[in-house]
Amino acid sequence: MGALHTDLYQITMAAAYFSLGKADMRAAFEYFVRDMPKSRSFLLFCGLEQALEYLENLKFTDDQIEYLRELQVFRHVSAEFFDYLREFRFTGDVWAMPEGTVFFAPEPALWVEAPIIEAQIVETALLSILNFQTLVASKAARVVIAAGGRPVAEFGTRRAHGAEAAVMAARAAYVAGCPATSNVEAGKRFGIPVVGTMAHSFVMSFDSEREAFKGYLDVFPESAIFLIDTYDTIAAAKLAAEFGEQVVGVRLDSGDIAALAKDVRRILDEAGMRGTKIMASGDLNEYKIDELIKSGAPVDSFGVGTEMATSRDDPSLGGIYKLVEVLEGGRWIPKRKASQNKATLPYRKQVYRIYRDGIADHDYICPHAEEHEGEPLLVKVMDRGRAIYRRTLEDARKRASEQVDALPEPLKDIWKTARYPIRLSPRLEHVDQS
Amino acid sequence: MGALHTDLYQITMAAAYFSLGKADMRAAFEYFVRDMPKSRSFLLFCGLEQALEYLENLKFTDDQIEYLRELQVFRHVSAEFFDYLREFRFTGDVWAMPEGTVFFAPEPALWVEAPIIEAQIVETALLSILNFQTLVASKAARVVIAAGGRPVAEFGTRRAHGAEAAVMAARAAYVAGCPATSNVEAGKRFGIPVVGTMAHSFVMSFDSEREAFKGYLDVFPESAIFLIDTYDTIAAAKLAAEFGEQVVGVRLDSGDIAALAKDVRRILDEAGMRGTKIMASGDLNEYKIDELIKSGAPVDSFGVGTEMATSRDDPSLGGIYKLVEVLEGGRWIPKRKASQNKATLPYRKQVYRIYRDGIADHDYICPHAEEHEGEPLLVKVMDRGRAIYRRTLEDARKRASEQVDALPEPLKDIWKTARYPIRLSPRLEHVDQS
Repeated sequence: MGALHTDLYQITMAAAYFSLGKADMRAAFEYFVRDMPKSRSFLLFCGLEQALEYLENLKFTDDQIEYLRELQVFRHVSAEFFDYLREFRFTGDVWAMPEGTVFFAPEPALWVEAPIIEAQIVETALLSILNFQTLVASKAARVVIAAGGRPVAEFGTRRAHGAEAAVMAARAAYVAGCPATSNVEAGKRFGIPVVGTMAHSFVMSFDSEREAFKGYLDVFPESAIFLIDTYDTIAAAKLAAEFGEQVVGVRLDSGDIAALAKDVRRILDEAGMRGTKIMASGDLNEYKIDELIKSGAPVDSFGVGTEMATSRDDPSLGGIYKLVEVLEGGRWIPKRKASQNKATLPYRKQVYRIYRDGIADHDYICPHAEEHEGEPLLVKVMDRGRAIYRRTLEDARKRASEQVDALPEPLKDIWKTARYPIRLSPRLEHVDQS
Repeated sequence: MGALHTDLYQITMAAAYFSLGKADMRAAFEYFVRDMPKSRSFLLFCGLEQALEYLENLKFTDDQIEYLRELQVFRHVSAEFFDYLREFRFTGDVWAMPEGTVFFAPEPALWVEAPIIEAQIVETALLSILNFQTLVASKAARVVIAAGGRPVAEFGTRRAHGAEAAVMAARAAYVAGCPATSNVEAGKRFGIPVVGTMAHSFVMSFDSEREAFKGYLDVFPESAIFLIDTYDTIAAAKLAAEFGEQVVGVRLDSGDIAALAKDVRRILDEAGMRGTKIMASGDLNEYKIDELIKSGAPVDSFGVGTEMATSRDDPSLGGIYKLVEVLEGGRWIPKRKASQNKATLPYRKQVYRIYRDGIADHDYICPHAEEHEGEPLLVKVMDRGRAIYRRTLEDARKRASEQVDALPEPLKDIWKTARYPIRLSPRLEHVDQS
């Protein structure tokens, strides 16, 4: 990810810090969400690996610097600033929650401590990486809860916001508990299991559905899942039944899935194909999945695309990155912003999670240096620009599963949002404005 | 964009076509939207340039082929298929609407005619490219209409679905009429003008707002836009007024923008700063902009982020890619899918737009070979795998502007959706199922 994947103002501000002799002032910025999205009871932190990779590899190429120099806005900026950019590396420290950690507004999930010019330059990229993966992971966790143990495959590539968004959506969904994706690049890059069946066009390209099914089964004798809604679903189910147990599954992608699944199950069972699975797809989300399951529909697995890969009901996460402390004259000075509806809490902070009988009871947010009972959620992940706490994707996935398991039941009700108790250290509420 | 940015089933189907001797069967697939999104009266086609680049450059690397070969699902697929992939190039023809063309459901905006194996392999990538840029361009066109000639800068990078989505969102917004973006990569890659001001953190990092403003103005004497809502907006406006006309603009990012803009305008005017502009930002969309303008708020320009870069009110476009014809025994056979609620129209099609007094009156969709009055919207853009109709981004932007201008007024009302008249050729409605 190149250095120009940022907002211009990060670079104009950098030029100002540099020109005004403030570049080296040490500062701390926190990543957090001010308010919970309206239909989310918890968030699942995701994207840290890509954030650390970005920070470790960030540099400005000559080409990029040439482009910047020629912008009108930099006309009065000295050549020394561009020399500085040429040597730029991120040298800061980062603390963060491990990927897969559940968090809530307004808890910091990550903070950066670095010379202010560096901390500022990385803002936009960190936000775009963390906001998107956390958005999708938080949505996918709900879908996984609704599916109640039935596998959910991530199918959203064609509706994700471009090719790279699709790959990262697949990654986030995997962290949140989806066991597979249709996205091949995500499979190769991250080792996520890939799955796929057939499209309507495949069926339509043959003179008959029978010919299409037979052909596919010849080529994929051990993994054929027939798409059975191209023409008449029931007729296609009966056709599938003629092929016997070799058919691994059938997929329903339209119509009244609940009713069709029951009919199709009966047809398959009568043909002795109890092992043949029924997969449902087609604009599914956590609500529709929950309703399908409650209706008794014999669906064995789900393919979820658009709704998960774009977090369709709430497609952007308002994660922000705010200055919370600066080092002045050898002392850390807490910073808080007071503007209407957009206040922030000062200090680099730690979040402690307090459990009762294995279930999360409440969180406690306090200045980083304060000690408290419970599990401290933020750990040091980068030291002077070098990542020191890397976890595998499987670790993140395991943590997500454990974290969601440990939530109080009301937070896992997809139909009603619940508030998790957050307590603030008194030191956060009584601070002199600096 | 690599060849694995696709759904696995495109490759399993390709293996089936190949193994069954059907790879070379010529087929045509169309890209279209089945139903209009609920709050859109028109769509703006965008992303064709990236789609053509993808098709021209598509190839499978050895590394990618190795990954595929080792997947369990391909266990029974012959080595010849992977040899085929190694030599794979897209050799088809493509017809499409030029970028910036207004279109409606269910008009095809693009079709591909190629050996079925090629047309199938490219489906997912084409969908993800075209769906996303068309989504954002269609939303941005509404924002631009609402702004009524006032400039709208695209500010959505931090909430876009990752870094690459941000760049493409900036491109689509530019096509739709936004004159600038904050995204520097989009500026460099596409020549889009870039803009940027300062963040709250910049103001907060100084001991006083005055010091922050003065410092910024020293470094950017010709382009300083002060962010004035960090602490007290009115106080900051008065402070800005002390710096006089050199201040290019002030930005309001929170609070009651309508009321604040009036007060701030008065403060600036009283200081003789009639040339200093007021920019508004902060969760704006077409509705809020329209209300601000109707309230008489003296806002000169807008910065729009999340709402535009994610098309927040409707964040995915249901563009699909369906088989419409196959060549069998030297004859093109129309194909249509009949499944419930998901029917498709057969034939490669052309769309004619019929104007009355310079305003679009209705569109007529017909089989490609049929002649009709009006402007044929689809043109041949790729011939045997080679792009033959490339337009600049400025061309696309100009076309978008002309196309939106030529819409009937009710379609430009952002508050109410209107239906544009679409007529179907009788030949599309009476076709034998094949």
